[in-house]
Amino acid sequence: ARPKVGYYYTGKNTLSLLTEQVNRIKVKDVQSVPVVVTTGTSAYDAVVTMFLEDVGSVYVVEPGGILGGVVSRKDVLKVAMGGSDLHKMPVKVLMTPVTKIITTTPEEPILTAAKKIIDNEVDSLPVVVPANLRGNKVHEHEVVGRLTKTNITRVFVEIGEGRGGDSYG
Amino acid sequence: ARPKVGYYYTGKNTLSLLTEQVNRIKVKDVQSVPVVVTTGTSAYDAVVTMFLEDVGSVYVVEPGGILGGVVSRKDVLKVAMGGSDLHKMPVKVLMTPVTKIITTTPEEPILTAAKKIIDNEVDSLPVVVPANLRGNKVHEHEVVGRLTKTNITRVFVEIGEGRGGDSYG
Repeated sequence: ARPKVGYYYTGKNTLSLLTEQVNRIKVKDVQSVPVVVTTGTSAYDAVVTMFLEDVGSVYVVEPGGILGGVVSRKDVLKVAMGGSDLHKMPVKVLMTPVTKIITTTPEEPILTAAKKIIDNEVDSLPVVVPANLRGNKVHEHEVVGRLTKTNITRVFVEIGEGRGGDSYG
Repeated sequence: ARPKVGYYYTGKNTLSLLTEQVNRIKVKDVQSVPVVVTTGTSAYDAVVTMFLEDVGSVYVVEPGGILGGVVSRKDVLKVAMGGSDLHKMPVKVLMTPVTKIITTTPEEPILTAAKKIIDNEVDSLPVVVPANLRGNKVHEHEVVGRLTKTNITRVFVEIGEGRGGDSYG
């Protein structure tokens, strides 16, 4: 019998190799284009944008692409149920303000971002970078993308089909 | 020097082991409880149920838990925008009928189900079993759960953190 080719065990198990691979995938590798409206937009027009773009939420931005808030289908539906006139209502009134929004960044590992989505029970995270406009306050952020559960589900399918972390980055 | 403990390479790479592990996870291992309303429910009451249960869609069932259709926030929002009175509108009018719904089963690998979600651009799949009531038509199905992108995202986080397919089944 010919000798088998032997390997030495490296001390890493399959799962830790997998974890390493998943950890190489960053938010910027899988994020979607953000759908935004400006602060002066009416709730009605925000809904129209949601339908046209087929997204569950839109980001409300101030001049310079600065994140001001998020409006979801749920927010609008609640107001519509209450009988308010959405034409006369600015999104600013019903949006979740930026101070209460969980965000991610392009360089964040997708695993960390996915954990934020689960822990905070949200559908998507705005992908932000510090705004570098002159005179901006330190806490202001520009929206450059959005990370959704759809993005994560797609990565899951790709990894499960054997197209792993090596396809990214 | 003491000899290292040697292993023989099995011919399987990390990724195929991972794929095997992911493929052991079935829909029934991760599914959520379905939120249902009956066919006679008004669109308004369906929305109230969505808010109380904090879900993006509810399943419309006929007697015996038979799946009749699905109503999403998007469906209701569209109708509300049009100015219809949701109190007077039965969900039956705005639901997506069962003939057009993509479903999954408890025993389906989660990877296959996740692929259905991505390929069909839906947020969730009803988990169904053949209805075994006397005299039922062959194509009737009872709803036993719902599989959402949240369920998939949670599995992704668990696998990425090193709690893999072995935790399931």
